[in-house]
Amino acid sequence: MENLFDYIDQNRERYREYWFNGLRIPSVSAEKKHKPDMLRMAEYLLRFLREELKFEGRLIEGEGNPLVYAESPAVEGAPTVLLYGHYDVQPADPLDLWKSDPFEPEIRGENVYARGADDDKGQIFAHLSGIKALMEREGRLPIRIKCIFEGEEEVGSDHLFAFLHGPEGKELLAADLIVVSDNTMAGPGQPAITYGLRGVIGFEVFFHGPNRDLHSGIYGGSVCNPALALSRALAGLMDEKGKIQIPGFYDGVRAITDQEHSVIAQVPFDEEQAKKDLGVSAFFGDPDYTIMERRCARPSFDINGLTSGYQGEGGKTIIPSWASVKFTLRVVPDQNVEKIIQATEDFFRAQVPSGIRMDFHRQQGAEGMVVPLESPYVAVASHVLETVHGKKPLFVRDGGSITIVAELWKVLNADLLMIGLGLDEDAIHSPNEHFSLDCFYNGIKTGAQLWTELAKMKK
Amino acid sequence: MENLFDYIDQNRERYREYWFNGLRIPSVSAEKKHKPDMLRMAEYLLRFLREELKFEGRLIEGEGNPLVYAESPAVEGAPTVLLYGHYDVQPADPLDLWKSDPFEPEIRGENVYARGADDDKGQIFAHLSGIKALMEREGRLPIRIKCIFEGEEEVGSDHLFAFLHGPEGKELLAADLIVVSDNTMAGPGQPAITYGLRGVIGFEVFFHGPNRDLHSGIYGGSVCNPALALSRALAGLMDEKGKIQIPGFYDGVRAITDQEHSVIAQVPFDEEQAKKDLGVSAFFGDPDYTIMERRCARPSFDINGLTSGYQGEGGKTIIPSWASVKFTLRVVPDQNVEKIIQATEDFFRAQVPSGIRMDFHRQQGAEGMVVPLESPYVAVASHVLETVHGKKPLFVRDGGSITIVAELWKVLNADLLMIGLGLDEDAIHSPNEHFSLDCFYNGIKTGAQLWTELAKMKK
Repeated sequence: MENLFDYIDQNRERYREYWFNGLRIPSVSAEKKHKPDMLRMAEYLLRFLREELKFEGRLIEGEGNPLVYAESPAVEGAPTVLLYGHYDVQPADPLDLWKSDPFEPEIRGENVYARGADDDKGQIFAHLSGIKALMEREGRLPIRIKCIFEGEEEVGSDHLFAFLHGPEGKELLAADLIVVSDNTMAGPGQPAITYGLRGVIGFEVFFHGPNRDLHSGIYGGSVCNPALALSRALAGLMDEKGKIQIPGFYDGVRAITDQEHSVIAQVPFDEEQAKKDLGVSAFFGDPDYTIMERRCARPSFDINGLTSGYQGEGGKTIIPSWASVKFTLRVVPDQNVEKIIQATEDFFRAQVPSGIRMDFHRQQGAEGMVVPLESPYVAVASHVLETVHGKKPLFVRDGGSITIVAELWKVLNADLLMIGLGLDEDAIHSPNEHFSLDCFYNGIKTGAQLWTELAKMKK
Repeated sequence: MENLFDYIDQNRERYREYWFNGLRIPSVSAEKKHKPDMLRMAEYLLRFLREELKFEGRLIEGEGNPLVYAESPAVEGAPTVLLYGHYDVQPADPLDLWKSDPFEPEIRGENVYARGADDDKGQIFAHLSGIKALMEREGRLPIRIKCIFEGEEEVGSDHLFAFLHGPEGKELLAADLIVVSDNTMAGPGQPAITYGLRGVIGFEVFFHGPNRDLHSGIYGGSVCNPALALSRALAGLMDEKGKIQIPGFYDGVRAITDQEHSVIAQVPFDEEQAKKDLGVSAFFGDPDYTIMERRCARPSFDINGLTSGYQGEGGKTIIPSWASVKFTLRVVPDQNVEKIIQATEDFFRAQVPSGIRMDFHRQQGAEGMVVPLESPYVAVASHVLETVHGKKPLFVRDGGSITIVAELWKVLNADLLMIGLGLDEDAIHSPNEHFSLDCFYNGIKTGAQLWTELAKMKK
């Protein structure tokens, strides 16, 4: 019988089409107009799991977008894996910066361009194709795989969070090991195992001034401008060195150990090249930490969107009726998310001048996490990644957040393997998101080989 | 022969239709898509001047929107008046806050709702109808009137500014008296003569960060956030008492004299009612001045629009590529506009952190102005306003700016009469702009009577 990897290579185009069909469904969870697309995407995945992979499964409906759950038969003596992924994607705008339709995958050079090409549909379909390859060759899987795919990762994972804490969640999702591919490799050709994630808390704050836009000539100087009031509040949130000024914000932040300083320093990073790639003349942030440490092991604050008054061409001489900001705080172990949310609200409340009324909204927050590297699963995964890429993986802490992963890990009390299949430069969340064909095909091999090797472990 | 005012009252509906047809043309100067509407509006005015009023005139083309110029025959021994107005309007957005189509005038109660209903088409058409009434009754005008209507008042008056300073501007527009109706009365039934205007300078500033929106998890803490950098710059522009912090900004500000304190105090203002009308719990600003003084006789700073990153529903975890602000400074005599523009740019430049690139744009600025009240034209106008309204006019300084008026006054070396026909509460520049039918009909009478009385003056 031919080699598994050769078989996968011979069937590339076919596997690619499953993925492309998924990319054509604009499953943007943040926009209400895409609600029907969320269901179409969930049904497409469920149909694939049932018809192509012979899994048993169902959609789990509830508040928000459906969860896709499906499982393969139990295998005596082999571990059970929970494979997590998300089928929702970020909004595609600004649309005019895309070189091709974000919901019609286009191959340019070595890459496939589409919203979700990498995050996370590309990584989901690499895994589904890996399972498909095993099924085609063996007719069965060597371990039980439970798939849980959610449609709200980009907007806070409320439904899966509720299901996990509900009556059947813990039992249905029970597994020895959780596998997640929603991160990146350490660089092209350089595999990685992600051992940490930052947590995240999303906020939206409105400052309301007069009940309508006012003429800035008639009223200017006598009515508090909500855009200025909001700017003043935001300006006080961080100093020029990048230190966040919310009282108590840094309480509990776990120090970076000496060992970790050196693990983080091993991840290749060319500062000059990175500046060129990003088009910035300088990096920013807390000078007490390296750039890579700031990105993954230290908390951060970012404005994601700012809106007030006239947005069109030319000018409009008004005092805007309101101003709003969307922002996120990233947190690390062992910051207390609830305390931070309260402190943030208190901070803003103290900044509201008279004449302004504040509306303060917060998302479900997620804690930062770091998983131990001394697990037998990590050893198996390292070996698999070396087999696929010809290189030992690096161990990386990721600055991004997968809200729900920390929660799954905590509640299910399982081991956790985070194996990113994409690259930093894939422009996820940006215009022209892409995934390299190489990453996709290597992802298929990684999955197929991982299930094969995990089956050999004594349970 | 019947009384002039009775004649006007008998022909109200007919005069109203000229105005309504003008309101149906969406002549928004700030938006490129309305470029063809600007020409349509100019042509509509010119046709009216020629066909209905027997003026001789032409469109003056150049950079930007055409000027409408037309004049009636010279009258020996009587003064020549230059009647200024603008046919462009503010953008109508936010559209969803309008109760009726902004470009289809709707009568609700005593008011006509439409963008430009007051500012400035309503006031232009009141004057045109006043002239029409005189022509209908007399077949000729008792004085020469030169009309100059521009299409760029809301965006800086560049074309008229250039024409005025060009080879034929000063001669063509030469007059004894400039009449402008682009302000407000002092209240319902209370006429006013405006003797001062604030100047204005419009700015648009961009802070550019990374060359694309970045994932705030992957890069947060290491890349300068342009929205935060801009917020920090803006926050420093004004303190919590409303004092502008640009170095040298208050240099030259003319003190308010004791006489003026009392003239301003005569303008009726009910603070509690005004707070209720505007929906604010408190007024704002420099505690050393009354609210009315802050509005008209003191400089001010207002953010008109703020834009960065994700503006849609829900969240998007990005570091935005750029952030921008539109803002205006209002100035009073004798601040130096050019010095202030330079100081403002310097102020911003000093706030640009490394990793951010600034684009700084400024409009043509206009100086603040105050005209003397001891003119024979003011006496005639006072008498006319008392005849129309049964009440002596108040003398008011207006916080708004008519960029070009200060320039016309200075260059043409003529007297200036600013007689507002509308009301403060007309929501100009806001959704549901309106003009009361009473104001419109009284405006017609004011104009017709003014030309009649001015003709009796010895030149």
